[in-house]
Amino acid sequence: MALAAAARLLERQGPEALSTRRIAAEIGYSAASLYSIFRNRDDLCWQLNALTLGALHDRLQRVAESDPRGRLQAYGRVYLDFACRLPARWSLLFEHRTPESLEVPDGLGASIERLFRQLEQPLQTLVPDAPAEEVKLNARTLWGAVHGIAVLQLRNKLFLPDGTPAQAMLDTLVDHYLDGWLASRGVQR
Amino acid sequence: MALAAAARLLERQGPEALSTRRIAAEIGYSAASLYSIFRNRDDLCWQLNALTLGALHDRLQRVAESDPRGRLQAYGRVYLDFACRLPARWSLLFEHRTPESLEVPDGLGASIERLFRQLEQPLQTLVPDAPAEEVKLNARTLWGAVHGIAVLQLRNKLFLPDGTPAQAMLDTLVDHYLDGWLASRGVQR
Repeated sequence: MALAAAARLLERQGPEALSTRRIAAEIGYSAASLYSIFRNRDDLCWQLNALTLGALHDRLQRVAESDPRGRLQAYGRVYLDFACRLPARWSLLFEHRTPESLEVPDGLGASIERLFRQLEQPLQTLVPDAPAEEVKLNARTLWGAVHGIAVLQLRNKLFLPDGTPAQAMLDTLVDHYLDGWLASRGVQR
Repeated sequence: MALAAAARLLERQGPEALSTRRIAAEIGYSAASLYSIFRNRDDLCWQLNALTLGALHDRLQRVAESDPRGRLQAYGRVYLDFACRLPARWSLLFEHRTPESLEVPDGLGASIERLFRQLEQPLQTLVPDAPAEEVKLNARTLWGAVHGIAVLQLRNKLFLPDGTPAQAMLDTLVDHYLDGWLASRGVQR
């Protein structure tokens, strides 16, 4: 309940609103009672980010498309839509930096890996004999590229030709990228 | 001189430092004397962004590579390097939002167009018979994708497999993207 309140506060009022006092006020508890739940601000951000990554994973899993190329395109659309619907929670995934003196909790690292695996599966299906390292690099590159479009779309800085939707850019990106990778592996589309 | 001081302040102390008072202190002038140079904060940001776009354009023009694919790859590296060297100035390009009541100055819009033309030229050389609108969309898509890698690299969030440099991701992106586009146009690499 405290974590859900923190997520609501973050989305409504931005990352500056993330204080134990304000979260406590939101759910009618004392600030002191929350210190056992969120040890410090980093811990709060980790827990929020794990919640956000879980929500994104759920949405990716709901993609019904079975064709691997269609699935990757749908994942791109889900990612763009997720960033637009929950911009503050999505931004915190990238804005929060774990101090060098602390270790990212295992659970958070596992959530990130699980998301990448979701991307790696259709890529591996497209090129069954591609080595795992190559699939990993392609999953991260394609994600980074889609991430750029999402970042720019959120700030209204895509500079698209008049009347072109962001969707057209996303489709162009995924299509050309996959065609190029398949061609480099000698796989017919 | 005032603009150069503002650019130094921005890079050293972040966007919060951008006040007329602090810029004036930096160059030993009175704040009042600066109001004729920067009409307001938006005007200051526009002037800073025009300066930054000009500096980026200069660096792109210094790329000697004449092969169009090699030039596009070099542009990607210049962009990544520029973002890492001047992170605050580069970020202001995307963080500053012109209020709806104001119009972006013509000069700034022209600087942005000039940068895109720099990308469109090698793309058009690769596919001479591609219509202008298709080249425009490809220039903006490829830039958006490279931008994503730059954003994530700055925040140390690329999640690359151990030992893989960001450069490898950039090369993979540009290569696969161009190969895919060329294949869709029936052009042999």
